[in-house]
Order: sequence, then structure tokens, then C-alpha cells
Amino acid sequence: MRDFTRDHSALALNTATLGHNLDGAGAGWSPERVIDACAERGYGGIVFWRREIGNRAVELGNRVRASGMSVVGLCRTPYLVGSEVPADLAGDLAASIEMAASLGAPVLTIVTGGTEPGTKGVIETQNRLAEHVAAAAPLAAAAGVSLALEPLNPMFGGNRTCLFTVADALRVCDLVGAPNVGIAVDVYHVWWDRTLPEALRAARGRVLGYHLCDWLENTRHMLLDRGMVGDGVADLRAIRRAVEDDGGYRGPCEVEVFSAENWWKRDPAEVLDTIVARFRQLC
Amino acid sequence: MRDFTRDHSALALNTATLGHNLDGAGAGWSPERVIDACAERGYGGIVFWRREIGNRAVELGNRVRASGMSVVGLCRTPYLVGSEVPADLAGDLAASIEMAASLGAPVLTIVTGGTEPGTKGVIETQNRLAEHVAAAAPLAAAAGVSLALEPLNPMFGGNRTCLFTVADALRVCDLVGAPNVGIAVDVYHVWWDRTLPEALRAARGRVLGYHLCDWLENTRHMLLDRGMVGDGVADLRAIRRAVEDDGGYRGPCEVEVFSAENWWKRDPAEVLDTIVARFRQLC
Repeated sequence: MRDFTRDHSALALNTATLGHNLDGAGAGWSPERVIDACAERGYGGIVFWRREIGNRAVELGNRVRASGMSVVGLCRTPYLVGSEVPADLAGDLAASIEMAASLGAPVLTIVTGGTEPGTKGVIETQNRLAEHVAAAAPLAAAAGVSLALEPLNPMFGGNRTCLFTVADALRVCDLVGAPNVGIAVDVYHVWWDRTLPEALRAARGRVLGYHLCDWLENTRHMLLDRGMVGDGVADLRAIRRAVEDDGGYRGPCEVEVFSAENWWKRDPAEVLDTIVARFRQLC
Repeated sequence: MRDFTRDHSALALNTATLGHNLDGAGAGWSPERVIDACAERGYGGIVFWRREIGNRAVELGNRVRASGMSVVGLCRTPYLVGSEVPADLAGDLAASIEMAASLGAPVLTIVTGGTEPGTKGVIETQNRLAEHVAAAAPLAAAAGVSLALEPLNPMFGGNRTCLFTVADALRVCDLVGAPNVGIAVDVYHVWWDRTLPEALRAARGRVLGYHLCDWLENTRHMLLDRGMVGDGVADLRAIRRAVEDDGGYRGPCEVEVFSAENWWKRDPAEVLDTIVARFRQLC
């Protein structure tokens, strides 16, 4: 397990921490201002959301690299299963892959979407998901992009995901069997899972991302009340130990805090400073 | 797996389905009216909440039995761990056991409470929970009451539970090692868990209750937006098959639907009729 107490070069900002995943949320900093503020503070990289990139992927990717950082990833593909799959799934999926490639983002995150219409339970939807991912994997590979299946907290079943654990995500990875398909591990979604070390041993070498936040003792909103690292009940050190020592992950650690009523209301400069201090001390 | 299509004698009402778990919710029927309405419809039993029993446990238990039904269980002990443990835990716990005994309820449900103050993660709280349950088990056994540890959906971590899966509950059962301590399985909490059959095989013979509801595709409130059986995405037949064929359960199936904006607003007679029809057809 790496020691970050005096080195936060592995730290990345997921811009959702500044509200950039939703229209109208946060302080509304431009991507350029975020890039500069992260670079000043020694962040190693940034993860963007598609909605803030527009048609400036090449330009913004180059700006990140010119600032001495890397584009760590892009959020995210459209839903691939469930009731909210876009009408032009193939086109939207290809656009997300192309944007990741243009940014120079090595990883594109997949939040799968929910239960397939007309089905019950989990397995059938997971199997259909695997078919979609298998179809997309060669296109992504040709663009130099890996696809990261992110399991979500089981509260997001029904309309948002069909992957509830690292073991679920690994099952779909195994069904797909493509070298550029792996898993993203997010504290918010997996902190409760006592079997995480063994699940990550099975997924060793296929962990493509590690997302940091915390689970607040009193979570007031399912989606938008994540805790800043250190403010909750997740055992952050134990989780990272499992991600690194069991899962073999050595990549960036991105802080991703959806927090409509707290951190999104603060000055982004304060948020970015807090993250650096907490990352070194607590993660 | 039992066939309920022409026999709903295994059906029990959990009175939370009529809002009786919360002050001011539901139509406000008296326990007597609920008992009569269930008996008229051929329900096999009822599960009560402490708040509606007051000091009438013996009287109400007798009334249930005089109506040809059984008291299936009582909800629930105080929280045993976490920040919201009552000041007089021992007294409150003893009172809940005594009420179950006076009702003639063979099972008292435990919702554990959340993460212990000053700790992170899951294991330490589970271990402390096991100590509390081990201390309470002899008192319950002397009263003829079994204690059912109920794992909750991981969205209830932090302030409400430290048990997230059947496997978690079984871990604590094993730590306790008392013959009157087992597990309750609730569709709302476990529907997403692909490993349920194997978890229930490990728990075989220790399943003390099966709670029916459904997981709505679009869940609008963490606690109070459960679906009526058949309205959601849970594979109810597959779950009951696991509970019965893998877990060895042959007891009552209680319908427990917390539904502030839908079923609690309807005429309880309609709710009770709907349950009978859905139970025979879909569960």
C-alpha cells in the first residue's frame, strides 16, 4: 500500500466534487480554472464529465497535460441497460468513447443503467449488459480507451445499475472477456462490503480506477449527500489496502464527492485545499 | 418450494403495511380492527410493532389466536449498536422481549443500529453487536422468544444497521452461537444479492422470518417507498425458492410495505385484499 502522507501526486480531482456533473450545481468554474487550480496544488490528474467538455476535448486534454497533470478518466457512457437507455445507444456510446480518446483519457466509466424492462432480478440484465460491453470493447480498444464497470451501492438498483458489488462487476468482466474492460471501485458504493478483499483478489489486475469519498453516518439524500473523505464511517485505509494489495491497483485516486448541500456550496479553492490535506492524512 | 396459488394460510400481515410503524401514518385502524379484517380474509398471522401494543400485549395476542391466526412476530428491539442506542438499553431490550413473550410472538426482530461511535467500517461494530446479542439471548430463550437479525439494504449503513447481507447476519449468528438467534430475510434488503442461494444454504435452519415487499424501479424515498409485491423488479419467486429450498424455511411469509405516498393512503381493506391476490399469484 502506497504512502501518501508526503506525496499527493496520485491524487486526482473528479470534477463532480465541484458539482460539474449537474447543470447549475457548484460555483460554475470553467474547466480551465479547475485545471489551473488543481495544477497549482500539485494534483496529479483530473476526471471530467462529458457535459463540461462540449466539443473542446482535444484542447482541454492538452491543457491538462501542459499543466503537468494527466486526464485520468471520463464520466461516462450512456446507460447500456434498463428503461433509460438512449434511443441512439450506439451513437451515444461511440461519442463517449471518442470524447475519451480526444481528451487522452485512458478510462471511460460505465454506470450500467437499471433493470431491463420486462425482467426481474439481476442476472438477466447483467447478461444483456455483458453483450453491450462486448460489442463496444473493440471500438474502445481501437481508440485506446479502457471501459471501467462501476458497481453501485444497492440503493441504486432498479433505475441506475445492475452491478452491486465488485464481484458482480467481475462477473460481467468475465462474460465480456476483453482486455480493455475492467472495474472501478468507489468508496461510496463498496464501503459496507466485508468481502471486498477477496473480491478484489479475484479482480486482481483488472481494477481501472479508485474513487474516494466517504459514507456519512446520516446520509440525507441517496445521490447527492456523499461525505468528504474523513467525515464518514468508511474505513478508507482498509479499502485502499484492499484495492492496492489485493486488487493490484497502482493508479490515480480520484476524489468524487457529490454534495449538493455542503461541499458544492463552498468556495472551490477551499474544497481543493481540503482534499489535499485530507488525502495526505486520511486516505 | 411451497405452492401458494390456492392456499394463503402462510400469509401474514406486518402492520407496517398499514403505516402502524409510525405515529400518524396510515388510516389509524385499531389493532382489533386489523385482526378482524385479516381473519376475515384468511390471513394466517400478524406481525405487530411495539408502538401499537402499549400495555395490551396479552389481550391482543389472545385476540389474534381467538380469531384463528397466530402472532408471527414483533418489531423490534432497540438499536444495540451505533449512535442511537437508548440510554437504558438493557431495560428497553428486556421490555421488547417481555412484550414478545406476552403477545405469544415467537420471533423478535433486531434491526441492529449503525456504526459504533469512534469506529470505522463494519467488522468492529458487528463484533460488538454479537456481544450484545449473546448477552440478550438467554433472557429471550427463557421467555420463549427467538431473536432474528435482519440484514438491511446497504443504503441503511451508518445510522441504522451494521448487517448488509445474509452472510453478514450469519457471521454474527455464528459469533453468538445461541440456538434462539437466527436471521430474517426481507426482499427489500436482499433482492439485489446474486449470492443469496449460497448464503442461505450456509444459514440453513436458522431463517426465522421472510418479509415480502418489492423494490420499485424508481425508489423515491429510502425508507418509505417500498413497492407492493409484484410492482417492482425483485424476482419474488426466485428469492422465496432460495429462502425455502436453500434456507430450509417453512414458516409464515409476512408482507411488510412501508409506503407513505401510496399504500398507506389507501383504504386498508383494499390493501389487505390486494395482498391476498398478489400473494397467491406472484409470491
